[in-house]
Amino acid sequence: MKHSPHLAQLIEALRALPGVGPKTAQRMAFHLLQDGRPGARALASALDEALESVVRCRRCRMLTETELCSICAAAQREAALLCAVESPADVVAIEASGSYRGRYFVLMGHLSPLDGIGPEQLGVRELESILDEGGVRELILATNSTVEGEATAHFLSELAARRGIRASRIAHGVPVGGELEYVDGGTLAHALAGRQSL
Amino acid sequence: MKHSPHLAQLIEALRALPGVGPKTAQRMAFHLLQDGRPGARALASALDEALESVVRCRRCRMLTETELCSICAAAQREAALLCAVESPADVVAIEASGSYRGRYFVLMGHLSPLDGIGPEQLGVRELESILDEGGVRELILATNSTVEGEATAHFLSELAARRGIRASRIAHGVPVGGELEYVDGGTLAHALAGRQSL
Repeated sequence: MKHSPHLAQLIEALRALPGVGPKTAQRMAFHLLQDGRPGARALASALDEALESVVRCRRCRMLTETELCSICAAAQREAALLCAVESPADVVAIEASGSYRGRYFVLMGHLSPLDGIGPEQLGVRELESILDEGGVRELILATNSTVEGEATAHFLSELAARRGIRASRIAHGVPVGGELEYVDGGTLAHALAGRQSL
Repeated sequence: MKHSPHLAQLIEALRALPGVGPKTAQRMAFHLLQDGRPGARALASALDEALESVVRCRRCRMLTETELCSICAAAQREAALLCAVESPADVVAIEASGSYRGRYFVLMGHLSPLDGIGPEQLGVRELESILDEGGVRELILATNSTVEGEATAHFLSELAARRGIRASRIAHGVPVGGELEYVDGGTLAHALAGRQSL
């Protein structure tokens, strides 16, 4: 059955959302047009307003609505610590843990030459100029524990080393509260290799 | 960490989508504002246009952009068969099976007194006026196989009976290609009770 043109267009547009395939998109479209009309209207205007007002922080590239994001603008954050992450969601996750008081640099991705993502696209020039300011004592590399994330961390650690700045990688190992039995082999190998004396 | 106001508003608005919780909504918002800006723009305008132009078919309540949906308007569909379903997605699924040549009536829900959904909300008055026209020989009840779906089917079958119109319920049983071993007990009980002689 062919959908009517505007319905088909909505279903197609919903597929721009991450993790949404054709079936889910159709379900979403029907829901929005059936019982969800107020929600659909709110979503359309929220999208317009966010596209209009959300920009990247001039310093750390985090999504923000001001020139500097709230973290870069906060005087009480430790300027000597800089944590490089792949995405804004990573900043939210680390902030939610409440265990970090430094600043961030959001790469918005990882090195991936095949996709045309090199240092330029990750804002490495901006990162270098922050490091060159001289206030940063330690660059914490919190990219994902994937091949690309590791490569990106390695690349950034060399930038820091060249400036005599300490670079560190977040620890990988058994999740807190996790049972050894259910942890995958790669993680266990990391946990053993990274063991610390008591 | 508090999101900036328009970002928070977008995350909240995305939760209007079925099956989207706070984490998924945040992931979607970041995606739309990071790499997905063209998609976000397209989604906003697709929503606006669909809200503007998609209405319900005057006859069968299916979502459409014309007064009559393409199925109600098609002269070659068998007018003697009317299939009552709960949602537009059910129409799409039955049409995709290619096994039905009649018309539909879309209830847009099922009887659910606790949620304030009675016959009025399901368009039963419109359904009755179609049945009263006299062209329908059989009302096929294809509501879901849930308590509410069964109750709705039972209620509609009485409407048909009162007019001397045959009412039928779609068969429930073991899915074609399914292995008995993995079929739940309720379905197996239905399959046994509904057995047909060869």
